[in-house]
Amino acid sequence: MGQNTTRRGFIKAGVAVGAGLAAGKAAAQSDPLITEVQEWNQVLGFGVDERPYGIPSPYEKAVKRRSVPWLTADPISSINFTPLHDLDGIITPNGLCFERHHGGVAEYDPAAHRLMINGLVDNELIFTMEDIMRFPRENHVYFLECAANSGMEWRGAQLNGCQFTHGMIHNVMYTGVPLRLLLEEAGVKTEGKWLLAEGADASGLTRSIPMDKALDDCLVAFKMNGEALRPEQGYPLRLVVPGWEGNMWIKWLRRLEVGDQPWHHREETSKYTDLMEDGTARRFTWVMDAKSVITNPSPQAPITHGSGPTVLTGLAWSGRGTIPRVDVTIDGGKNWHAARMSGPSLDKSMHRFYYEFDWDGSDLLLQSRAHDSTGYVQPTKDALREIRGTNSIYHNNAIQTWYVNKEGVAENVEIS
Amino acid sequence: MGQNTTRRGFIKAGVAVGAGLAAGKAAAQSDPLITEVQEWNQVLGFGVDERPYGIPSPYEKAVKRRSVPWLTADPISSINFTPLHDLDGIITPNGLCFERHHGGVAEYDPAAHRLMINGLVDNELIFTMEDIMRFPRENHVYFLECAANSGMEWRGAQLNGCQFTHGMIHNVMYTGVPLRLLLEEAGVKTEGKWLLAEGADASGLTRSIPMDKALDDCLVAFKMNGEALRPEQGYPLRLVVPGWEGNMWIKWLRRLEVGDQPWHHREETSKYTDLMEDGTARRFTWVMDAKSVITNPSPQAPITHGSGPTVLTGLAWSGRGTIPRVDVTIDGGKNWHAARMSGPSLDKSMHRFYYEFDWDGSDLLLQSRAHDSTGYVQPTKDALREIRGTNSIYHNNAIQTWYVNKEGVAENVEIS
Repeated sequence: MGQNTTRRGFIKAGVAVGAGLAAGKAAAQSDPLITEVQEWNQVLGFGVDERPYGIPSPYEKAVKRRSVPWLTADPISSINFTPLHDLDGIITPNGLCFERHHGGVAEYDPAAHRLMINGLVDNELIFTMEDIMRFPRENHVYFLECAANSGMEWRGAQLNGCQFTHGMIHNVMYTGVPLRLLLEEAGVKTEGKWLLAEGADASGLTRSIPMDKALDDCLVAFKMNGEALRPEQGYPLRLVVPGWEGNMWIKWLRRLEVGDQPWHHREETSKYTDLMEDGTARRFTWVMDAKSVITNPSPQAPITHGSGPTVLTGLAWSGRGTIPRVDVTIDGGKNWHAARMSGPSLDKSMHRFYYEFDWDGSDLLLQSRAHDSTGYVQPTKDALREIRGTNSIYHNNAIQTWYVNKEGVAENVEIS
Repeated sequence: MGQNTTRRGFIKAGVAVGAGLAAGKAAAQSDPLITEVQEWNQVLGFGVDERPYGIPSPYEKAVKRRSVPWLTADPISSINFTPLHDLDGIITPNGLCFERHHGGVAEYDPAAHRLMINGLVDNELIFTMEDIMRFPRENHVYFLECAANSGMEWRGAQLNGCQFTHGMIHNVMYTGVPLRLLLEEAGVKTEGKWLLAEGADASGLTRSIPMDKALDDCLVAFKMNGEALRPEQGYPLRLVVPGWEGNMWIKWLRRLEVGDQPWHHREETSKYTDLMEDGTARRFTWVMDAKSVITNPSPQAPITHGSGPTVLTGLAWSGRGTIPRVDVTIDGGKNWHAARMSGPSLDKSMHRFYYEFDWDGSDLLLQSRAHDSTGYVQPTKDALREIRGTNSIYHNNAIQTWYVNKEGVAENVEIS
């Protein structure tokens, strides 16, 4: 079964030729991996005491978070990216969730961690981790996307890899206490309309959050994918702000101040606002709109098997709900096809889509287009630029294009 | 906020006393963790280039798989257990999924791995990993439970820890190709009613699987929780047999033989059959019936906060569908309460339940009872023994009891 044997090939052999001449049979008679006993059939492997906490196979060592050194001045206040092109399904394993820090990763002792609620409340309160664990918990799968994800693409196709263009996103199951319950405990005063969330790390990152959102679906989370938060994701406590930009999901959460107006701190004025063509800036653009991206084939994941049956796959998400539909084109938009969705469809969570096609070996222009449960349709780059210009860094949810050449090599391109 | 300050305490303070005298405020004025700037607010953490593949916090080092040395002759053909008492939600992180091996863990090169389909088929076929990746894939969250899980409990309360009594289970999202598609490719002959699945490890483990199940919902999986299977879970390829005992989920899957009758190999005759009181053995008891267990409080996770608001939580699952309902008792069955379910309810997946109560500090007898979507109710140990006696090792899905004393210390006990 060589490089050029396709799935269609299998089917033809099965139907038309019969068992004796099938591709598989021929391979069986000549492939030493089948005909000869291999070393691994004769040697015992390692035991159950070897790895109390398991790690990936050594053959998977290329599957890792990657940073782009020139993007930031140093690796402390910096970014790395989730290897989306290596993953499938909708769960991001904890070890591969992208990182964005403003003062590096601290490893805090949970016994010494406190969460304070102060400001316009009836009772200023301080919680230990044990106090928080005594409140009712909920479990939800949510995507977390950095507002700057795909930000380099505003000015054209720039980074050659799905990991780099779109990898500031991950999707895990959180366990946490509804923020509402902690605020009810403190008793928010009538004039308390805003919340300042503050992190305990060296950057002391702060964001203003409207009280409506705080009381709606925010969580004070302590677990991700079943186990404790990872240090780089804010261990032992992080704010979860479903569907909203990642910068608001304060890590190492230590304080929640209730106020009557937003604070206009650094991360909601000079950063994380949308600079328009006329020089004004849109602020408070928190929701991450519907978006999709093809993860395979992509620049880091070329087609290596030649023409014939080919699996295209990708991810779609919306900060406003679910994704009932994704369209895919392989000819730059001449023809659109409904993708096949597979896996749970959960509110404000990643969705996985597939499109299987029989590649004829010609050039491809791949695009995907998400529709969310509100009816919103993912826009083109041109449509976004018409409204917002090209000064922006944040909130680029435009349709992305991969060009695939006859050899299966993929490249980040832009078409109008 | 000392050990005895309860959530109810917070509420009372907030409502009746006012901000000035609230427990939280008093703590704020005296707790150096709040009043003094801490080291971690002044020192930069590590950067994004430090851990391309992340690991848990050093403060979480007690969260690990554990084995029981006396259970098996050596650690190669042995078992370790998922730390259920340390987890929450429904996803088991890959590094903490229990292991059961018959020849140890081998680390295979996926480029040298082959899957063969032979026997009563029109075309005997051999697939490379790349061949398999060209078929349509699906994503499903399924529990995998060893048939021997809770097996020590047939003869009474024996192992003092939820991890040891019930930890031969995990729950992850699989990505794989429906087995049906590979069998269709080979063309199963009319008389092909059984399938022998065989692993590539030194034990060459085999199991007979009826064709109806193979064509229904089985997957040939290559990813778990988004990334490649872990070596100890059969990397690069494992058979997923939803809802059925874990031993059938052949790891390092290398061969599928189609036959007209079961093979009666070791793992389906002398092992993984149910020895009855009269000395006969039930065979082919593949489905894992509905079961639940309280993970907290439990012997490894005592109540440490004293009386007052207490969170009880646990897991429930069924090999026949979903879990619409779990009942909980804290007084050994005198009163039963409907537990609160939280998280996705998925077919043949773990479900998470909670029961919050105000502990009065007296002795507790904790039990949970699962109902599945077929109407089946988890039985008592006595009810199971009445039918099956006590010779069994496998398929114990009985209600489990934890005794909690006035100090919050929990113990595995049995009550009638």
